[in-house]
Amino acid sequence: MALPDSWLTPPPGPSTQAIQLATERQQVLTKPPGSLGRLEQLAITLAGLTGSEKPTIDPVRMVIFAGDHGVCSEGISAFPQEVTAQMIANFASGGAAISVMAQALNTSLEVVNLGTVGEVPELPGVRTELIAPSTANLAETPAMDAGQIEAALTSGDNAAQRAHQAGCHLFIGGDMGIGNTTSAAAIASALLGLPPQNLTGPGTGLTSEGLRRKTRVVEKALARHGEDQTPLAVLASLGGFEIAALSGAILGSAARGIPVLIDGFIVSVAALIAVRQQPAIRDWLLFAHRSAEPGHQAVLNAMQAEPLLDLGMRLGEGSGAAVAVPLLRAACTLHNQMASFTDAGVSDQSGDQI
Amino acid sequence: MALPDSWLTPPPGPSTQAIQLATERQQVLTKPPGSLGRLEQLAITLAGLTGSEKPTIDPVRMVIFAGDHGVCSEGISAFPQEVTAQMIANFASGGAAISVMAQALNTSLEVVNLGTVGEVPELPGVRTELIAPSTANLAETPAMDAGQIEAALTSGDNAAQRAHQAGCHLFIGGDMGIGNTTSAAAIASALLGLPPQNLTGPGTGLTSEGLRRKTRVVEKALARHGEDQTPLAVLASLGGFEIAALSGAILGSAARGIPVLIDGFIVSVAALIAVRQQPAIRDWLLFAHRSAEPGHQAVLNAMQAEPLLDLGMRLGEGSGAAVAVPLLRAACTLHNQMASFTDAGVSDQSGDQI
Repeated sequence: MALPDSWLTPPPGPSTQAIQLATERQQVLTKPPGSLGRLEQLAITLAGLTGSEKPTIDPVRMVIFAGDHGVCSEGISAFPQEVTAQMIANFASGGAAISVMAQALNTSLEVVNLGTVGEVPELPGVRTELIAPSTANLAETPAMDAGQIEAALTSGDNAAQRAHQAGCHLFIGGDMGIGNTTSAAAIASALLGLPPQNLTGPGTGLTSEGLRRKTRVVEKALARHGEDQTPLAVLASLGGFEIAALSGAILGSAARGIPVLIDGFIVSVAALIAVRQQPAIRDWLLFAHRSAEPGHQAVLNAMQAEPLLDLGMRLGEGSGAAVAVPLLRAACTLHNQMASFTDAGVSDQSGDQI
Repeated sequence: MALPDSWLTPPPGPSTQAIQLATERQQVLTKPPGSLGRLEQLAITLAGLTGSEKPTIDPVRMVIFAGDHGVCSEGISAFPQEVTAQMIANFASGGAAISVMAQALNTSLEVVNLGTVGEVPELPGVRTELIAPSTANLAETPAMDAGQIEAALTSGDNAAQRAHQAGCHLFIGGDMGIGNTTSAAAIASALLGLPPQNLTGPGTGLTSEGLRRKTRVVEKALARHGEDQTPLAVLASLGGFEIAALSGAILGSAARGIPVLIDGFIVSVAALIAVRQQPAIRDWLLFAHRSAEPGHQAVLNAMQAEPLLDLGMRLGEGSGAAVAVPLLRAACTLHNQMASFTDAGVSDQSGDQI
């Protein structure tokens, strides 16, 4: 196994011609210039990323990466570790938030199981790409060895490749892994050089005592890890299988010209790894929502990201990105289907009927 | 003609039983409690308003009220007055932002023409309920006489009645009327007791010189109007046909048990009139977005409203409400279709598989 090409090579750039054409189009639609606010720039950005004056995000591909975390032995989660495996079954049977949203939005949903402590039977829609039952306990030792991190990144890159083969125009990654806000807080602390207490939050619902314990675990992991900010080293030392796969999927999507809609805290940390590794992939990222998990804002700031939604969500699974999909669709539909002043015989600001 | 019953009578209250059942349901869905953020309370609120543990907002009714403003003679808009009539035709032919959104969202769209200076031919989907070619110039004289305001309120109430007869579970009102941000700023100034410069903004795109002129016009209107904060007096003196009809439609929807999704600055001012007239209708209002029109925030504050979206939109037509419709649908779909911990065999926070 080796690192994917998308880890090692910068992505293509957006189409400047499509951006130019879409910008001109926005000026002639029957509305005061700028009156659709961020939806206007969103349409122009998507035009550049999809290479079309009239962009579409459909078909959308959603992929949830799931994996367990050795650090759970430190007692850092409000939910027991077996929930990771149980939720994979819930994704498959359609009862989880992201399953409900995928069906409502008419998008394809893949689940990739990278390894859980609990047993997962064969399930429809679930790909089994086991690396190990869980990562190692990152408070004590690196979470992954070299072969494991290459496998996780490659699993993500392969998911992007499948989305590309299916002709998808938007990639959404989601996460499932009890304990993964601990891993994400540690990664963000290491990459941003910020104290763990700024990035460690209640996750699925820790008490204040639980939060203090979790913060100490992140501090211990950071002390063990040291100062190395190399993305690969940070990810192997402090990451999770699903977080590494998300980084691989984000890089892999950008490499193949697919824009990526970034979910909340976990996926944003995976995106931060990807941006540190290949800064040019930042152009390919759209940010769906601001999570209630308190560390998210610092991670967004580091990427100069202003999310579309701020609804206090903190579920993971890609659910915040799913809720933002209709905003991207609205931006495209308005841009593509509104009449021009000329077509509609409507006077513009000069008062001339044009 | 007389004032509608909904102007004179408080609306029913939400169903406390449905709120109770929906609140209990939220606690057993397969997610950490609270992790869907505002979508959880939104589902519970809609349960109370629709009287169902498992609420739906569909079918949605959108109605755009259009009318011209005599105050346009003061040169307070970036667009010429004939655009009101031209945009009615654009709504009917499907080229306007709200038309595109209505089609994309699969919602019904009515246009009600209350009177325009420009000529409007017979058009499919446009109801002709003419009051006058325009209101009077509110800088000089009351905008409407008693018969006109009763006609406008009744037109709105009738639209709510049609939505009720069609079994709609959500009402969205939209506005079209060149000059109507001047009227709305004057109403808000009068009702909130705030200086006109706090509530007067660039509308469709005034220059700073135009904005100064517009502010002076609002100041002149306020000086003429005086201190009377009675909703009917303020609306007649400083309103527009479409704003009065929106107030009537909001009150009429609440009276018939239909929740209302409030758009931006114009519709929020119409809602403020309605809330001042019948404070209990506040329960029936959901707020879609924060407009870029600077006066909107003060109007939202006066109703303790925290909108769902903040995308810098300022188009009117109900377009911001339309963009928020998928968020309400997502809240309902997640609430109604997610599995419970028991159904899915997922352990809860206690670690017990329940």
